[in-house]
Parts: sequence; C-alpha cells; structure tokens
Amino acid sequence: MRILLVNPNTNAAMTGAMAASARAVASPGTEIVPLTPRFGADAIDCNFESYLSAVAVMDAVSTVDTGFDAVVMAGFGEHGREGMQELVDVPVLDIAECAAHVAQLLGRTYSVVTTLRRSVGAIEDRLLLAGQRARCASVRATGLGTAELDADPDAAVAAVVEQARLAVEVDGAEVICLGCGGLAGLDEAIGARLGVPVVDGVTAAVRLAEAVVGLGLRTSKVCSYAPPPGNALTGWPLSHLGGAR
Amino acid sequence: MRILLVNPNTNAAMTGAMAASARAVASPGTEIVPLTPRFGADAIDCNFESYLSAVAVMDAVSTVDTGFDAVVMAGFGEHGREGMQELVDVPVLDIAECAAHVAQLLGRTYSVVTTLRRSVGAIEDRLLLAGQRARCASVRATGLGTAELDADPDAAVAAVVEQARLAVEVDGAEVICLGCGGLAGLDEAIGARLGVPVVDGVTAAVRLAEAVVGLGLRTSKVCSYAPPPGNALTGWPLSHLGGAR
Amino acid sequence: MRILLVNPNTNAAMTGAMAASARAVASPGTEIVPLTPRFGADAIDCNFESYLSAVAVMDAVSTVDTGFDAVVMAGFGEHGREGMQELVDVPVLDIAECAAHVAQLLGRTYSVVTTLRRSVGAIEDRLLLAGQRARCASVRATGLGTAELDADPDAAVAAVVEQARLAVEVDGAEVICLGCGGLAGLDEAIGARLGVPVVDGVTAAVRLAEAVVGLGLRTSKVCSYAPPPGNALTGWPLSHLGGAR
Amino acid sequence: MRILLVNPNTNAAMTGAMAASARAVASPGTEIVPLTPRFGADAIDCNFESYLSAVAVMDAVSTVDTGFDAVVMAGFGEHGREGMQELVDVPVLDIAECAAHVAQLLGRTYSVVTTLRRSVGAIEDRLLLAGQRARCASVRATGLGTAELDADPDAAVAAVVEQARLAVEVDGAEVICLGCGGLAGLDEAIGARLGVPVVDGVTAAVRLAEAVVGLGLRTSKVCSYAPPPGNALTGWPLSHLGGAR
Amino acid sequence: MRILLVNPNTNAAMTGAMAASARAVASPGTEIVPLTPRFGADAIDCNFESYLSAVAVMDAVSTVDTGFDAVVMAGFGEHGREGMQELVDVPVLDIAECAAHVAQLLGRTYSVVTTLRRSVGAIEDRLLLAGQRARCASVRATGLGTAELDADPDAAVAAVVEQARLAVEVDGAEVICLGCGGLAGLDEAIGARLGVPVVDGVTAAVRLAEAVVGLGLRTSKVCSYAPPPGNALTGWPLSHLGGAR
Amino acid sequence: MRILLVNPNTNAAMTGAMAASARAVASPGTEIVPLTPRFGADAIDCNFESYLSAVAVMDAVSTVDTGFDAVVMAGFGEHGREGMQELVDVPVLDIAECAAHVAQLLGRTYSVVTTLRRSVGAIEDRLLLAGQRARCASVRATGLGTAELDADPDAAVAAVVEQARLAVEVDGAEVICLGCGGLAGLDEAIGARLGVPVVDGVTAAVRLAEAVVGLGLRTSKVCSYAPPPGNALTGWPLSHLGGAR
Repeated sequence: MRILLVNPNTNAAMTGAMAASARAVASPGTEIVPLTPRFGADAIDCNFESYLSAVAVMDAVSTVDTGFDAVVMAGFGEHGREGMQELVDVPVLDIAECAAHVAQLLGRTYSVVTTLRRSVGAIEDRLLLAGQRARCASVRATGLGTAELDADPDAAVAAVVEQARLAVEVDGAEVICLGCGGLAGLDEAIGARLGVPVVDGVTAAVRLAEAVVGLGLRTSKVCSYAPPPGNALTGWPLSHLGGAR
Repeated sequence: MRILLVNPNTNAAMTGAMAASARAVASPGTEIVPLTPRFGADAIDCNFESYLSAVAVMDAVSTVDTGFDAVVMAGFGEHGREGMQELVDVPVLDIAECAAHVAQLLGRTYSVVTTLRRSVGAIEDRLLLAGQRARCASVRATGLGTAELDADPDAAVAAVVEQARLAVEVDGAEVICLGCGGLAGLDEAIGARLGVPVVDGVTAAVRLAEAVVGLGLRTSKVCSYAPPPGNALTGWPLSHLGGAR
Repeated sequence: MRILLVNPNTNAAMTGAMAASARAVASPGTEIVPLTPRFGADAIDCNFESYLSAVAVMDAVSTVDTGFDAVVMAGFGEHGREGMQELVDVPVLDIAECAAHVAQLLGRTYSVVTTLRRSVGAIEDRLLLAGQRARCASVRATGLGTAELDADPDAAVAAVVEQARLAVEVDGAEVICLGCGGLAGLDEAIGARLGVPVVDGVTAAVRLAEAVVGLGLRTSKVCSYAPPPGNALTGWPLSHLGGAR
Repeated sequence: MRILLVNPNTNAAMTGAMAASARAVASPGTEIVPLTPRFGADAIDCNFESYLSAVAVMDAVSTVDTGFDAVVMAGFGEHGREGMQELVDVPVLDIAECAAHVAQLLGRTYSVVTTLRRSVGAIEDRLLLAGQRARCASVRATGLGTAELDADPDAAVAAVVEQARLAVEVDGAEVICLGCGGLAGLDEAIGARLGVPVVDGVTAAVRLAEAVVGLGLRTSKVCSYAPPPGNALTGWPLSHLGGAR
Repeated sequence: MRILLVNPNTNAAMTGAMAASARAVASPGTEIVPLTPRFGADAIDCNFESYLSAVAVMDAVSTVDTGFDAVVMAGFGEHGREGMQELVDVPVLDIAECAAHVAQLLGRTYSVVTTLRRSVGAIEDRLLLAGQRARCASVRATGLGTAELDADPDAAVAAVVEQARLAVEVDGAEVICLGCGGLAGLDEAIGARLGVPVVDGVTAAVRLAEAVVGLGLRTSKVCSYAPPPGNALTGWPLSHLGGAR
Repeated sequence: MRILLVNPNTNAAMTGAMAASARAVASPGTEIVPLTPRFGADAIDCNFESYLSAVAVMDAVSTVDTGFDAVVMAGFGEHGREGMQELVDVPVLDIAECAAHVAQLLGRTYSVVTTLRRSVGAIEDRLLLAGQRARCASVRATGLGTAELDADPDAAVAAVVEQARLAVEVDGAEVICLGCGGLAGLDEAIGARLGVPVVDGVTAAVRLAEAVVGLGLRTSKVCSYAPPPGNALTGWPLSHLGGAR
C-alpha cells in the first residue's frame, strides 16, 4: 500500500519530519510517499495561507505521476479536503478530522491544542464541517506559531502540556489532539506528562488510511465528491505557469 | 463609495452581467468596479473549482491598485471570504451570506435554490460557517449547471420557480434566495411568479456593503481576520508566475 | 425614504436621542420619523415591560396616519417584531437582530453587552428566534439598568468597555453589539477604547432598512407574517380606551 | 388549592369549555377559577393577536383580587408566560409547554397538531424557548382556525386525526399534543382513533400545576423572573383606561 | 394509586429513605411501594454499575406480582428507563428526567449538582436523550460518591450548596436539581440556603407520576416502547438463576 | 494482536458469521477471538434485550481469562460500550460508532439501514451519544427483524437495497452503513447494486481496532471511563449464579 503524505506548506524539512512520524506507525508493507507543494507559505497560520495551501496541494497531487492508495493531507485545520476528494479516486484523509475520529474512540470528549489563537476558529470550523464538533470540549491555543513550534520542540512540549492540562481540568477533555502537523513526533513526550491519551493527526491519518484501504472502500462519488464537471480551466495546473520551484 | 465586485469565475461576460445588476441597485455615488480573476474555471460547480477560485480571487484583488471601500465576493457558496478578510482592510461581503442576512429580515425562514445537487452541501456548509443556517428551510437544486443557467434565462427562471415553489409549499420557506451569481437580474421575474420575496445575492451584497461602509465599520482585526502573519511565501501572487491571462 | 423609528418606552427624551443617532447615519433623502408609545414603561428592564411595549408600539404605529417605507423597532431584546410584521406591509427591523446581522458581516463571532443580568436571557432568546445565535459568543450585563445607562453616559461607557473587554478576551468575541437602545451614540467612544468594531443597533437598523427598501423588498406575507385573520377585537386600539397620554 | 385558568381570548364560552375540561381532571380539593381578559381578540390566530393577549392576560390577572396557588395560561403557543412569571409569585404554567412535558414522559418523540399553518412557527418558537424542541417530531396544521375548530367538534376531530396520523407514520411521532386550547375535551375521541397517547394542554397544565404546588415549589426569582424593577408606568393596568368590557 | 418506587442499588436503607421522601409528598390515596433489586451494586457511581442496575431493576420489577399504576426509577442518571417502558404498560418515570421537567416549569435554566465528576457525563447524556438538555446550564460534581453523600447529610448539604452557588452565580442557573437519589430529603435544607428552588428527583417523579396517571395516560406503545418482540431468552429473569439475595 | 469480538446475542451461529467477516478483513497477525454471552436474547430488537445484552457482554468479557488487545462490541445500536470501557484497559469499539466513523471518511453524509422501525430511535441515540449524529442523513428500517435478516440473506439484501436507495435519493446520503451485526458479509453484494460505499460495522471496527492499537493508544481513564470505584457488588458476575449456559 502506498500512502501519499502531503505537507501543505513549502517547508521540506517539515515534510521530512512528518514522513518519519508516519513511517514509525505504518504497518509492514505500507510505503509513505511524502510530497511538498511547489508554491505557498512555508508555515500556515491564517486563512489566506490555508486557502493557498489547498490549491498548492491539489496542484502538487495532480502533477504526481505515481500510483497511490490513499492521500493524507497533513495540515491541521487547513482547507482543501473536499476538493482533493473530487480530484482523486482513492480515499483522502485530513489529519484534523482523523485526530478527532481516533480521539472519540478513546474518550467521551476531546480537546485540540494548537498554535495561535487566530487558528482556533479555523479548527473549530473544520471539525464542525466534518461532523466532529459535538464532543469537542475545546480548541486551545499555545500562542506559538507553526514555525516556532517546529523550531523548539522542548518549548513546544511545555506550551502544549500547559494548555492540555487546562483542557482536561477546566474544559473536561478526556483525550488531547495535537493541533499542528509540526507537532508530529511529540505525542509520546506530551502524553507521558498528562496521563491522558494524546493523538497526533499524522499518525492517526496513516493508520485510518490503512484501515479504509484495507476495507476496500473508496470516496463516495455519488454527489458532493464526484469528479469535477469539466468546466473550462485557465492556468491549471498553476505550477506549470512558470518559475515555481 | 467604490465597491470592488469580484466574479469568482473567469467568464468576463458573467462579470459584466453581475456588474449591471449591481449598478441597478447601487445608491447614487456608489461606483461598482468589476473584476475577473486571471486563472480558474469559467463556471464553478464543484469544490475543486471553488477552492481554485478562492485563490484566484485573492490573487486578483491583491494585484488591483485602485482604492475601494468594500469587496463583494460574487460566488454563491464559494470558498475564500475568510482569506480575503485578512488581505484587505475594508469590509468583505459574500453573496450567499448576504442573501441569507437579507432574507431573514423579510421572513421567518428562507430557502436557497441553486444549480446542481452536488452544490447543495457546499452552500449548506457556507451558511453553517456564517452562522446563518438555523432558519434555512432547505437548499434545493434545479439540476442545471452554472453555465446552463447563464445560457438560457427562460429555462433558468422556470427551473428555479419549480424548486422555489416546493421550498415554499413543502419545506416551509417564506423567502427565496437565488443560489447562483449567474441568476443575477432574474429575481424580479422569479418573484413575480411566486408571491414571496426573492433575494439575489449580488444586489443584496451591494446594498449591505453600502450599509456597513455607511456605518463607518470595518472587519474586526482582533483575531480570526488579522493580517497574515508574514510567513515566507513562494510564488505569490500566482498570476505573476507566467502566462496567465 | 421615510423610516418610522419607534422607541418602545414612553421616554420622549430617549426617543429624541435615538432619532439623533439615526439621522447621523441616514443617507441623504432618508427621513427619520420618531414615535413614542402612548402607554407602557419609561424604561424597559423585564419581560412584563417588554410585552407591554410590544403592544404599545403596535398601538402607536396603528394610529399613525402618515406613509413610511420601513419601521425600525428600537428596543434591544424587546418583544413584538413578529406582530408588527403582520400589521404593516413595509419591512420591520428589530435593532437587536440588525446589530447581530451587521456584526456577523465584520467578524467571526460577536458578543452583546447589555444592562441588567435579568435581560441576558431575553436577548439570547430574541437572537435564537431570529436565527442569529450560533455565532454569538456571549451576552454580558453591565449591571446598570436602562435608565441608569441613559442618565450617565460616562459611567455607561466605562461599564460597557469593561464587559466588552471580557467578551473579547475571555469569550472570544470579535465584534461588540451595544445591547440597549439607550446606548445609541456611544458606539464610537466605546469602539475607540476596545480596538474592535462596535455596532449600535439603532444605526445598524436604519442602514439595513435603507438597504432592504433600496432592494425593493418587503416582508413575506405567505405564512407567518400574513395580515391578521380578522378575528373580532375588543378594545383595539388600546390608546383609544381613554385617558392615555 | 386554587388554580387560576386564564383563557387568552375574549370568548367567554371557550373559557367555560376549558374550565369544564380542567375540572374533569382536577384532584379533589382543587378549585378551578376561570378568567377571561377584558380586551383582545375572540380567537387567536396570529402574532399580533397573541401579543395583545399576553398583555390582556397580565392585565386581567393583575386586577383579580382573590388568592390562588398557580396560574395556567391556556393559549397554545401564545406569548406572555415570562411576563406573568414576573408579576405573580405562584407557579405559572403554559399549556403548550405542559403538553410537551407530559408527552415526553410517555414517548420518545411527540408532534403537535394545531390550527392554521401560520401558527406552526409560533408554536415551534415557544417550544424552542422552553427547551422542549429537541424531541418534537413536527408541528402540523389542520388548516382550520381557532374559531372553526371550536365551532364544529366533529370536523375538528377528523382534521386533527388526519394530521396526527401523518405525524405518527411520516414524522415518527409517538405521542400527539393537541395544539389549541379550543380542542380541550376532544383528546379522548382523538386518542381512541389513533392508538397513541393524546395530550391536551389544559388538562396537562392543571395536573402539572397540582404537582408543582404539591412539591411546595415556586418560580425562581433569582434572575429572569424577578419582580418588575419598578420603572414608571403609564396607563397600567390598561383595562382601567376606559370603556373596556 | 400505587406507585412502584425502585431503588437501582441494593442498599435497602437507601430504599427506605427514598420511600419516606416519596410518602412525604404523595397525595392522599397514593401508596408508595418500595423495591430493592436482588443483585447489583450497593451504590452506583459508574457506567458498569449503572448498566447492571438497569437489568437488576427490570429483573426486580418483572418478578413483582402486585398491581401498580406507575413505576418511578430512582437512579439519577442511571440507564434503563427505555427498557422498563417496554416491559410494563404503566407510565415509567426516571428521576433525573422528572427533576429536569419540574425545574423548567420554575425557571429559565437549571443546573444539576451530583456526586463524582465521572458521573457528570452520564447525567448530561441522560438529559440529552430525554430532550431536556437545551436549558441545562451545567451539571456540577461535589466530588463525593453516592455512599459518602448518603452517610453524612451535613457534609452533603454543604458540598451541594457550594456547587449550587457556583451554578447560579457562574453558570446562570435559576433552579437546582439534586443529582443523586441519596440526596432525597435534603432539598429543603439546601433550598433554604440558596434562595432558588431546589428540586429533588424522587419527589418530583412521584408527583409527575400522579399527574400522568391522573390524566389517564400511558406509555406510547406504537414504536420505541412496544412490548419486547419475543426473541428467545436464556437465563431470564436473572435472579432465578441461583443464590442471589 | 488479539481482538475479542463479542456478539451481544446468544446465537452462536451469528457469532461465527461475524467472526468469519472479521477474519476476512483482519491484517496478517491479527487473531479474532469470538465470544458469545451466557445469557440474554438470541436476537436483539428492543431496549430490554439491548440492556440485557450489555450486562451479558460485560459478564462474558469479565470471565474470559485470555489476554487481548481490543474489544469489538458487535451489536449495532446496543447499549454497553461505556461500561465495558471501565472494565477493561484495552480499547473498546462499538460497531455502530465505527461504521459511522468510517462512513464519514468517505462521504459528506451517511445513512444507516437497520432492522425494525422501533430500532431507529435506539440507533439515532447511540450515534448522538457518540457525537456522530451531525452528518447522519437518516436511519431507515427495512421492517425485518434481526433473526429474519439473518435467516434469508437474499431477502435481506433486497430490503436493504430498497431503503438504501431512498436514503441516497431522498435523504441525501452518500454512504450507507449496514445497521445490524447480522448483515455482516453482505456489504459487497449491497454496494454493488447501489454505487455508493457500503460500510459494515463489524469489519470497520476490526480495522479501527487495529489502527488504534497500532498507534499505541488506549481508553482514557482520567474521568468517564476510569475503573469502577469498588462499590460492593451482589451477584456479580451474574453467570456464576447458577445454571446459565
């Protein structure tokens, strides 16, 4: 089984870290194929960057020529999953949604701990659209941006633990989801300090991709995610326009 | 007052029709500045095209050099409003949301009549995110795509009237919103046959833009729609990459 | 365009202050016609007074003989809008609902800051019935009654700013609505201290009335707000009964 | 125990019929004191008439000089309960809410069958505000007005049975509430034809009033329903103004 | 009228205390028949014990040979009501649900104060399933287990008062429900300290049972609570298996 | 990895069929350990039987002496998952919830097709409690009981296809979940006729169990699902009482 793991930002080092996390939990026989988009932001902390990443990720996947069995979209709370589900036939898994699905198999409620306060609403909205908001106790922000979390893992762990503890004690969360692709790999360190299950979206999505593919299931094409209807396109794919990486 | 009216698709004729509708209701002293994106689809009937339009519209607005007092985003149910609110300081108005706001000033419930069945979910989601879903009785589809509705106004009117009547009689709607930017200009013909108020999103948005600007109000920059944080960008704006229109 | 601006309480000075606010934002050519009911409370801080005002306002409007293009009901959280929509053909705009509509065009969430704690539930209920509660972060009370807020504008500003700050910092509000007709005129002073948009219901309603009238739209008469069915009435209009002002 | 049973309309014959129903289920020692308001509509089929009744009922109760242990407000879906709870110390029971409470003790879901289609929204709103909407399968209209239902009991039974059957078979209701005070006394005839429990609001409210009074409980005065704050009133009580009945 | 009052736990002393509470509010002519299950836990503080009690209570009621007019299930937040409604023809009343129903007749919002934090979710879920969650301001825990509350009434009162005060002041509750069958009899002592109505589920259920029986109503058998379909059973009733008490 | 697969009913043939389905999708190295309870119903079509199964399943699992890595509870819409999560340390997966989780990874909405109409509410309630109801388009009944579905697979397929088609065409479902453990193994036959993904709960749960175990995660023990507090038990485990199978 080949899983295409798409980092939404242009930071190839972060792509590598995510791939390492993914490989650590992948079953024998599962190949992780990492992909970095050709344009966009090197870290994503707002709606503009998120929308840009949605298109950059679709552009990157459209121009990949190898077969794969599933796509994991590794932006936590980013846009784009619904569009990708139209472009490809194989299952598409969003890490925020997968974290929520796994969390709800483990506890009655869950919270997300993410980066900046401005991202809280975006994550709430993604969970709402995925039908996964009812048991979300809270989405909390550490106040550190994606790049900051990525740059200093120790500070990241400390900041996440602080907010996660409040989520458990004040908001009533029973499971914590790490709300940033850049936190991949820190779930054990964080969980060890908290005494509650900690779910990382990238690894959750890899395992759920294996489950769905193993069940022989694919995205429903009957309505919302049918292939694009073929309206005339100008400039697509965008990375063919010119000098993008 | 100058209102930038952005068509999400690349169809300049549709831009022109929208601008004509907008000018017909604009107050004296309001200038409508139409804008067509440089890349994307010439009609939008799926999530992929919608996400592409979100970025194309942000690209187009980013590269316009004239001052304006508000932006009207003329895609019904398309993505992107949250990103645009970060990129500009002036109020940003989405036509689906504006149609819903006006409809709820006129009746206890409203329905939307749109194009293809696959777009129903996308419109429901946009209304949900805008906090405007509670009094939405239904979103109904005519089964005609955006280009079809645009090409044959008589057929468009008939198809919309049929679904709107069901919305009123079966779903309990008291107001009808026209769920496609390409229906601009047909609201009176449709309303005359139905006996209920019919709201067109483009004209609603123009008038709400005047209202908000007239009140001296602007988008809140305290959290969700603060300016982008300045992460490094590759390839932005995209239309500078190469040969796009 | 003539807009009938109805104060729900019997305090003519407050009617005058509201009219001044309304005129300050009205477009050229819009005439504001203020109206004070003939019976009821001189300030409204409970359900009993609110219900009484609903009938007093309908009584007053029923007995006005001049033509007008819209009715603005200037009680924040008061009852009666649905009844007025049955009695008149022109659009009817409630200031609490209009404040919420405008707020949601400016930010992802909003809070209301009002008078007494006992009014919080009434405002929540009005927003709920209007389908505008989903993005309401909170309704907060200053602890000052309507008359107190009206009597001491400086104290009113300070008390509102204190609660509004908590709404932004604790509840996650991005826009503040002033939850009392008597706060009309203080929105700029309050907004200047907060750094978030502040919406006054009276001015919002005037501008939305202009928008709706400008669109050529009227209240839907197909169901909920059809004219009264003509059941026999005793004692209506009430102000004809006797010695009321 | 004395229960004040207030008919919201001015039709004394309907007051008498309600009182007869109430007495038929009242426990030994419970006295039913019927009351008809001095002004308003002789049947209530719209919001205007409903608001008028809310004030007329408060006026009537305010001017009754005998002691009572509870107030039953016998308008199904009418306004006013919150105001009455401020004016009196004893428990106040609304018949629509009481029907819903009892229905939910008997089945997983319930529907209401009422008069005109225009009243459906008003009843939905009242149930929503009372926190009783979640298990409401539907509110259905017979198309007959209050006066029509009252005038022809056989036609009323047939019309209610037809809609109730649809509520059970199509909407999944397990209990039916009779959505009009004028249907009091027909619950057994209707229930016999349907095979599901049929709840009449007047009798339900009388029995719930006995239950609450028997428990020694009264309306909470800590916040929403505290006594009116004493703002100056003009013209209250209204029936003292002049020639009202 | 004979009301079967079933304690879900095996603690006969607690059954006796509940029966005493019930008798104190029962109307003349109402006989309270207490019942203790033959197996299960002697106090219930978790889902395992709660599920066990559901079956033990059904077992006990199935093997009672005397006629009764209603069943009161005296576990606050315990499972089983839906099953019991299938097994018997008479009305079945759950004390948590009955407390919520009565509370909502007395105030706009209510809170529950219960035992351990782990029971909060179970009570929220029961209220949700009963359609009674919308006006629930909060469910708060004292941190004392069922047995502890039962053993030391003074400590129980103090702990409940502390949380109830927070429910009123912080969460906005207007009525308090005592969230544990073992608190029966303490409602007056607690209410006296709080100034808000305090509802005990056991007494509320007894009075509601009288109301429903007095109305001549029974559980709807049309769908969810029809008699069991007669699938073959092994080992039922369980208490016939062997040496249970 | 060893997965304990617990059939809630006493029908060992159905346990065998479920185990065969489970093994067909299990990964290499995953052992399926089937378990049949010692008491209860041989098919489950009501709340009484469901509650009984919850306790019978906990009884059976409590008395199994071999180690396992996860428990799959194979009753669709049955009670008990929360209790099992307290009794064991390993992850516990309910097939109704797992079907919903997988379905939502594949389409925007899903419907469940189940057995008798009386079970619709029970399934809706289970999905509601699991936080998985928001995107559930409908739960539809074939009208065939569990034993009937099990006895005649061809009739089962035809009946499920008929309701599933209505779910897709009328209710807007994009994925179908088979709402009965007894339908295990028919998903492919049904999916082939419908053109939408069909999810079987047993196989979904097995694959999700592998995913969760593979991620090294376990049930949160911080609150709702902590081990039972140790209240004294009478008669537990129940199957030790006497002559049960």
